Order: sequence, then C-alpha cells, then structure tokens
Amino acid sequence: LIPDEHPPVFRDVRLEGFADRIPLEEAVQWIDSHSKALDSEEIPVEKAAGRVLAQPFVSPRDMPPTDTAVMDGYALRSAETIGAGSYNPLSFPIQADALVLKPASAFLISSGTPLPQGADAVASFDLVRAENGTIEAIGPVTPGAGVSSKGQEAAEGTPLIGNSRSLRPSDLGLIASFGVKTVNVVRRPRVRLILAGYRPSSGWELGDADAPMLHELIARDGGVIESSAYGVREQSSLAELMARPGADVVLVGGLTGTGPDDVAPLALHAAGTLSVHGIALRPGGSAGMGTAGDAAVILLPGSPLHCLCAYDLLAGRLIRRLGGRSSQLPYRIRQAVVGRKIVSSIGNDELCQVRLVSGEAVPLGSAESGGLVFAARAEGFVLVPAPLEGYAPGTTVSIYMYDEPGDLEGRSK
Amino acid sequence: LIPDEHPPVFRDVRLEGFADRIPLEEAVQWIDSHSKALDSEEIPVEKAAGRVLAQPFVSPRDMPPTDTAVMDGYALRSAETIGAGSYNPLSFPIQADALVLKPASAFLISSGTPLPQGADAVASFDLVRAENGTIEAIGPVTPGAGVSSKGQEAAEGTPLIGNSRSLRPSDLGLIASFGVKTVNVVRRPRVRLILAGYRPSSGWELGDADAPMLHELIARDGGVIESSAYGVREQSSLAELMARPGADVVLVGGLTGTGPDDVAPLALHAAGTLSVHGIALRPGGSAGMGTAGDAAVILLPGSPLHCLCAYDLLAGRLIRRLGGRSSQLPYRIRQAVVGRKIVSSIGNDELCQVRLVSGEAVPLGSAESGGLVFAARAEGFVLVPAPLEGYAPGTTVSIYMYDEPGDLEGRSK
Repeated sequence: LIPDEHPPVFRDVRLEGFADRIPLEEAVQWIDSHSKALDSEEIPVEKAAGRVLAQPFVSPRDMPPTDTAVMDGYALRSAETIGAGSYNPLSFPIQADALVLKPASAFLISSGTPLPQGADAVASFDLVRAENGTIEAIGPVTPGAGVSSKGQEAAEGTPLIGNSRSLRPSDLGLIASFGVKTVNVVRRPRVRLILAGYRPSSGWELGDADAPMLHELIARDGGVIESSAYGVREQSSLAELMARPGADVVLVGGLTGTGPDDVAPLALHAAGTLSVHGIALRPGGSAGMGTAGDAAVILLPGSPLHCLCAYDLLAGRLIRRLGGRSSQLPYRIRQAVVGRKIVSSIGNDELCQVRLVSGEAVPLGSAESGGLVFAARAEGFVLVPAPLEGYAPGTTVSIYMYDEPGDLEGRSK
Repeated sequence: LIPDEHPPVFRDVRLEGFADRIPLEEAVQWIDSHSKALDSEEIPVEKAAGRVLAQPFVSPRDMPPTDTAVMDGYALRSAETIGAGSYNPLSFPIQADALVLKPASAFLISSGTPLPQGADAVASFDLVRAENGTIEAIGPVTPGAGVSSKGQEAAEGTPLIGNSRSLRPSDLGLIASFGVKTVNVVRRPRVRLILAGYRPSSGWELGDADAPMLHELIARDGGVIESSAYGVREQSSLAELMARPGADVVLVGGLTGTGPDDVAPLALHAAGTLSVHGIALRPGGSAGMGTAGDAAVILLPGSPLHCLCAYDLLAGRLIRRLGGRSSQLPYRIRQAVVGRKIVSSIGNDELCQVRLVSGEAVPLGSAESGGLVFAARAEGFVLVPAPLEGYAPGTTVSIYMYDEPGDLEGRSK
C-alpha cells in the first residue's frame, strides 16, 4: 500500500475518535517515498561543518604535492650518510638554496615544507652536530626518514570523503589544505514551522514546550527554518499557510487530535492531500501527513512528548533524508537488560522512555500519559514493536540513547 | 609533579630537538588543574540547546499543575458510569462550565487542558454516543482514565535536569512548559585563536587546514571565539597577543617545533609562563602549555594531523571542562578486534587512525607521518599507551569513533 496512490477517503475524526490507525511501518514508507535528497548548493568550506557532500570529495592532486619534510632537521641524501657515527662524523656544508641540493650538502628544513630536489631524507637534530655553517652527521640516516613522498597520503583522484556522512572539522581542514574554497553540499531542507496549538505562557499557566523543542530538533537534523507562525488555530488560515510556496517541509504542531478545535487535518485536506491521519504509534498516534503544493506536510500532536516522538520517527526522518542524511534515528544505540517490565499495548509501536539503573533499563511510566519530564529523566528510549505487549525483565533490548559523547558519566538528577 | 609549582627551566629547543618530553598523563594533569568550570550566565531558554546548566533544574511547581486531561473526550465522574453498557447506556448532559462539574454531567474536554473540579476521568469518544447536548456512556470508565493528576509527572522541587549534561531539545521544551523564560548556564569559554603558522592558499600551494578545523572543533566543544589572528609569526607580536586580556583560553596553532621559525614557545615564555613544551605524544608531541595573564595558553603543532590530535587530547579537554562539560573525548567508543598490527613507539602515547574493515580495526599508517587524509579515511582512532609497542592482530581495542549517529552505515570512500 502506497498511501498516495490510494488516498484514503477523508474522515473527520473530531468528537468521533480514530476508527483505525495505519501501522507505523506504512507511515514510514510514506515518508521515504517523499524524501529524495534535495538538490545541491556551493558553499564556503568554512561553513560546511555538519553538512553532507553532494558528491564524494576526490583528491584534486597528489597529497603531499611534492616530497615534503614531516620533521624539522636537515634535508640530505641518505646514501651520503652511510658509515657515519659518533667516532666517524661526516661533514655536510649547510646550503641556503631551497630548490636543489648540491652533492654532499644539507639544507635546514622545517616540517611541512618541500624537500629540495635531490634530498631523500631529513636528519633530526639529535643525529647531527651543527657548527659554523656545517653539520656533522653522527649516525646514518634512513632513506625516506622524516619525509612524506609525493602522493604518499593520497594520489590525485583518490576518493577521500564520502557523501554518506556529515563533514567533520578535520574534513574542512583537509579540503582547505588543497586550496579548495567551496564545496558542493546537499541543500538544507527549508522547514516551515506552524505552531498551531501554541500557548504563550502567562503566570501559572503552562508555557509552550513545542516551539523551542522543534526549533532545535529541526536544526539538529540539518533543516533550516523557512518561517514560523504561532497560534494559527483557524482552519482556513492554516490551510493558506500550508499551501504557500517556499518550503520543502511544513511541520504543524498541535490541533491534530479528536477534540472540537483539532482542525489541522481538515486544513491539510483543504490545502492539498491528507494521506495519513492516525498512526498505530504511542505516544504520537494522532500524527498525520500529506502534501500541499511541493511540500510534504507533517502534522505533529501538540502534547509535547507525543510531539517529540512523532517528530523523531516521522518528521525528523523526512528532514534527515531530504538533506542527504541517514534514515537512522540520530541516537546511538546501547544494549541493556530490562530491569522492570516494560508494558506496551499490542497493536501499537510504542516508544518507552527508560532510565538506566545499575545498567538495567527501567521504564519511567506509561508511554501514553507522560510528558517531557519523562524524556528529561530518561537516558533514552526503547521501541516496542506493535505485536508485542512489552518486554519482560531479563530481556536484552536496544536503547536509543539521548546522551552526547561529551556528557558526564555520573549524572545528577 | 604539578608543573606550575616547579616550572621547568626554559629551554630553547630550536635546532636542538626536545631533550625530553613529559608524559601525556602529566600534561593532562596540568590541563585539569587549570580548568575549573567558569562562572554562569542567564540566557533565554530558546538559546540554551547544547549548553550546560550551572545548577540542576528543579521542578518549580507540580507538573501537571492540576489534574489534566491527556485524552480528548468527556470529563466525568467515573463512579457515575458503573453499570453502563451498550444495553444499559447512562445519560450525562454536556455542560458548558469548564470549572466545576455538576453531578451526573459531562464536559467536552481537549487533551492538555485542566479537568473541571469533581471530574476524575475522561471517557474517550468510542465509549460514548453523543446526541443533542447529551452523551450516553456505553461502558464503565476507569477512575483516572485519560487523566494525569496534579504532580503525577513531577512534584514541585523534584530535580529534573542535571548539570552534568548538555541541554537537549526536549529539555528546552520542558523548561519552557513551566513558563520559565531564562536559564542559568555555565558561561562559554572565550577562546582567542592565533593561527601563527597560517598559510593562505595560492595556486598549487597548500592551503591552511588548521583555521577551519580549529574553528569547528572549538564550537563543537562549547567554546566561543573571542578573536582570531592569522599569520602572526613574529615573537614579540605573538607575545603581545597572548598577554592581551579578554580570553579564557589562548590557542596558538603552529610555530611550536624545533625549526628556526618556531617562536611560539619563546613568545609564551616572554608573555607569561611556559609550563610544558614537548609531550610524549604522537602525533602532536611539540605541543606546549602555560599561562599568560588569566588565560591558559595551549600551543598546538601546525601540522594538521598533529594539530588535531593535540587539540583533542589537550585543548579540547580544557575547553570542555571550563564549560562545565566532561573530560571525556567527545567521541563514542566502540570495541573492535585488531585486523592488522597497530605499530606504536614505546615511550609515546600514540593516536592511531584506523579504518573498520569487515568490522576489524586496520591502521591507516604511521601515526607520525600522516596528514588529515588519514583522519578523513578513518572511522576513528585508537590510543596506544606509552608502555606498549602497539597491538597485535586479534587484540580487542577501543576505537574513538568519528562518526555521528545520523551518518549512513554504508559509506562510499
């Protein structure tokens, strides 16, 4: 079933409830069929950290471009030092010419600079005695010592950086070292963020959690905010905003459920096509998706933990894939043994926040009723597939870890 | 030995070589003794992603602040639905008042809003039939169904977010949901970046790798560039720049070695204290450190792979710790079996770039002679302690992985 080819008959679920929800797997198929990597753009190398190359970076020439010293010392011909020793020092006048080494001569050289022609090694300072413009070698120098020869690191044409990962700080250095000033990277997905259910905080009222959270999640996944709008609760205004050109992705937060105000699905039905509404996923089951103009539109539940889960599994995947990134969740995986039963409802994929207690995975509570407190106190989450009613203690599970490698090990909570 | 208490007699190593280098462990001790977490600053919640709290975030009130619906439906008294069934529907008039629930009444409620006083459960739409301002319950409603009770997620005063990790997107959402507008975070270390050995690229000459690389590494570790300077090769100018107030950390790239132009250590000796110069580390052994005014000064080798390694093990650690972060290297660790002998020189801690070939760690080449090509082609690196001469095939080693969780698995190289 490809939902777009067989668009479901539109159904208003308000005050009715979801008659049926599609399996998460089908929702993910929809995402994948709407997320071919975007076109590319040329940007300065120094702005390219974290971006994804449109094509692999291929060595534009030999590296190093010529035989190069990788040690400070004296460049010379190693064959001329055979037999040298502390009882048989061999003399080499130090020449000033950096281009061509005269016979039986030496040249004072700094690491990172080209060898003079004729030299094949660098004698380190502890292998020589220098005096009055002459050095005495007090030991033989190995051919090639202290030298990186032309093309040794990479011959011209060698693929050096793939287009399947984000650029590292050292990649920028490598590219810049070739004298290359710009790189061709996959364009960032332009994301329109409509916080339909936005609640400005006042006094003791709850403040809005989704706005700062979604801004950062989108940035993490490589998206760039095209525009954002807050508190758009009216169906026709929402539809107009969804349909306006200029975005690759429209994310709507809130108004997706079954309450009387939940007009986001109706607005998408009016603006374009509502392909999916209601997913067998907990939390996050009131999510929906479709298209309006050229944009994929994802409807995210307003309740913050539901919003987070639906974002990570659906919207985040879309943004990552459009930007040439992996479909994988952007969390490292760690195996752990279940310490207390993880309860899940059969028929729904469930995302259960867990803490690690003495290395064991302990659920924080029911997937459905918790809020972001659960996510803050959790080390990560476990995905329980729809056919299972949870995991018994002792089972080994995969945890998607929220932590960053730089976080401290012992956490205060 | 705390190097600051016994500052070594200054020694000019130019054209001489390092007589001895201190163990990496002592250099790391120096870093740790100069990196107490900085003072804090108050910043808007929406700017706080990736920052580290100065104090744990404690729930400023009960969450939820009052009994709250977590489901769309009808709020009612569950006890009044006992005995309801499809053959015994029980009627409840729908009231408009959101504050107090009248006896035998129901209130249409949206997820995320407070229950009216008296209600203790939410009946989902599939448990009722609604008509003409009345619902008929066609099944009993469980007490507490669809409700998150006052303080259920967190009682006022509960520590929710520790100060030992960086703030996640969902943390910003949680903090904002309390109506909190600002957070107190550890100040970012202000880093002055002096690229002493900077080489602007022209034609076929090598371009400068260190500038874009160091900018990104500093940002990754939470530092902020206070100022940067390029191509400062003169000793007195370098010393003046090191000593100028305003930075927490001064990073100098280049001119650290034993060549005639390597004046960075002399400049630091003139500007303040050169505490360490020469470390038993490969690559990166010509690194140095000391203080100038209130700033810690780290001298990084100019050769790019040496620069990267010395940055990661020394300068990065300093910046991370000053910013309240972990001393850990910001790379996840993966265990792997050595597939081809990893060669290391006894007496130096060595950082060996490795690829994963069929899951086995294969070294890319000699630690000393490679450039950033090695880092680009590597999946990560292995640290070989000074007493070892490497790792034999079959040994299990820890790899510090360069990849990000969102990178694709199958890499094109």
